[in-house]
Amino acid sequence: VIDLTNARATDARTLADLDTPSVVIDLDIVERNVLRWQERCDRLGLANRPHIKTHKLVPLARHQIATGACGITCQKIAEAEVMADAGVDDIFITNNILGGHKLSRVAGLARRCRIAVVADGETVIEGLSAAMAAAGLKLDVAVECDTGGRRCGVQTPASALALAQVIDRAPGLRFGGLMTYPPAGGRILSAAFLAEATDLCRRAGLAVDTVSSGGTPDMWIDDGLERVTEYRAGTYVYNDRSLVARGTARSEDCALTVLTTVVSRPTSDRAIVDAGSKSLTSDLLGLEGYGAVRQFEAARIAALSEEHGHIDLSACEDRPAVGERVHILPNHVCPVSNLVDTVVLVRGDEVVALHTVDARGCVQ
Amino acid sequence: VIDLTNARATDARTLADLDTPSVVIDLDIVERNVLRWQERCDRLGLANRPHIKTHKLVPLARHQIATGACGITCQKIAEAEVMADAGVDDIFITNNILGGHKLSRVAGLARRCRIAVVADGETVIEGLSAAMAAAGLKLDVAVECDTGGRRCGVQTPASALALAQVIDRAPGLRFGGLMTYPPAGGRILSAAFLAEATDLCRRAGLAVDTVSSGGTPDMWIDDGLERVTEYRAGTYVYNDRSLVARGTARSEDCALTVLTTVVSRPTSDRAIVDAGSKSLTSDLLGLEGYGAVRQFEAARIAALSEEHGHIDLSACEDRPAVGERVHILPNHVCPVSNLVDTVVLVRGDEVVALHTVDARGCVQ
Repeated sequence: VIDLTNARATDARTLADLDTPSVVIDLDIVERNVLRWQERCDRLGLANRPHIKTHKLVPLARHQIATGACGITCQKIAEAEVMADAGVDDIFITNNILGGHKLSRVAGLARRCRIAVVADGETVIEGLSAAMAAAGLKLDVAVECDTGGRRCGVQTPASALALAQVIDRAPGLRFGGLMTYPPAGGRILSAAFLAEATDLCRRAGLAVDTVSSGGTPDMWIDDGLERVTEYRAGTYVYNDRSLVARGTARSEDCALTVLTTVVSRPTSDRAIVDAGSKSLTSDLLGLEGYGAVRQFEAARIAALSEEHGHIDLSACEDRPAVGERVHILPNHVCPVSNLVDTVVLVRGDEVVALHTVDARGCVQ
Repeated sequence: VIDLTNARATDARTLADLDTPSVVIDLDIVERNVLRWQERCDRLGLANRPHIKTHKLVPLARHQIATGACGITCQKIAEAEVMADAGVDDIFITNNILGGHKLSRVAGLARRCRIAVVADGETVIEGLSAAMAAAGLKLDVAVECDTGGRRCGVQTPASALALAQVIDRAPGLRFGGLMTYPPAGGRILSAAFLAEATDLCRRAGLAVDTVSSGGTPDMWIDDGLERVTEYRAGTYVYNDRSLVARGTARSEDCALTVLTTVVSRPTSDRAIVDAGSKSLTSDLLGLEGYGAVRQFEAARIAALSEEHGHIDLSACEDRPAVGERVHILPNHVCPVSNLVDTVVLVRGDEVVALHTVDARGCVQ
């Protein structure tokens, strides 16, 4: 059961007592999602290192670790600092770290917990090495591999080996294995890259203790996991409309919804709710519409302004009245967590507590 | 000159001292934008009521008022509360207010400053009337008119009159005129609606003291302003890429940029910067790409992940190296203000101060 030591009390007892818009998180569903994934990792012998960008909440990071996670993944130093302050002691920052401000903060983190980072180029390694050597530290640096995601990462297994050797020789650094974020549906191609890079490193005398992959969309698929030792998934803790559309999650596995009020019914076909892009984000992720209206399946969130969702009701038999409340399942939950200072923790209709989004707004 | 009483000091002296990503606001440009628009309003005899959603900053709201604005516009009660706490005493909340939580907060605001709100239906008016009458208050309520924006608002001038009469008869309320947010390019159609509604109200014996229109895209166009008494513009204080694309602003009128670092150059055609949708938002506003890279005009921000901007350099002759810093002009600045706790205030290259985004995250 999730520890709510730092949650805040509220007078609200049920969802009906909440003002809108409210970002609502059902802890029963979170606990099921966390446990189910941990059991799968245990079965497969995978180290589970969840990405906390989805929830940004200390109690959920602690709960993931208490359930069996080896540590957490962060994308930003500021997120890692929030989590280290809360006692999380094993953090992988899956980002190239550059510049004096950030390098001294990484050193500060490395003095108080186990930190690993990634690099995909020599400039990044030079900076890390100089900072860590000067601080008398030894930092694990994994080589980020672009295995089809077309973001950061070395482009070939041979380049992965070359960079691993640079890290291995660099003062203050230790080669920390391979890391990738494959595109959804791209794990097989990714596996071939990782297998070749791993073999090249081993043949060159470098131990590859960690091969870290990630992504919620394909987390339930076995293919291509053979050489992977560690898995980073984030969105699975809440799930969202994009994952339901992919078949990764069922609607009842979605823990986060945005509770809204219909504030206007200007025409028979149009409803306006009090949640817009400032609550739901403009992320489409290839979907039609900006979220799903739970009680009105045929409703289409056709457009968002900052504070309003524009709902097309033309396909709906039943239509909501002004003042009625509707739950919206966002297309993409991770940025929703980043938009609000406070989330409402519930179990079913019962309001349990409020909680500050501890690592919200951590851009640096 | 903008009063920076509550700004925070920083060791950074120039842009080169800042960590990235940083949201940077050039006060010289802000002051020019504010003054130029105020001078136009004065010339036209328009009351200037800027929307603070764009900056969410107390010092800029105060500066707009000191320069001649009659008051401010907010979309959310929480924004209005932040501004009232800072001494702003004339606030128009251009939103339907529903539900006990919000109605008691509006009453609280109305006790300490001049508040006006809008309504576009009887349910909203009933709630406002009951709450204001119980509190012994008299609240100005304007009728929101949908003059082509297809969001909230009554659909015909006859409906505007009917609702104005409901407000006029409702205890605790006073008819506060007409309000609309016309779509960009739609002011002429909007003007015909407003003129007819105004005339209907007057013929029915109702004074129409305020006819409030808004929108930065068309703020420099005269057509259709004849019957408008008050103008609500927000984005003009900073401007953005969407307004440059429309011809509303020039590039040198844009006050807000996101300072980023190139953290990866995985291929010759690709640069990754440390600002993604969590700093720039996914808003496209009909544009190609997620922002403009100031120093590299031919660069295209082809995609965003949460913490990374994916830049296509294939059309660029000069290309940035890892570690180089680039300024990005966002497509849409208003949601960018909502994503960061702190903005950096500068004049040219000189860093002046940091400032908390006072009304960030005010969703309710």
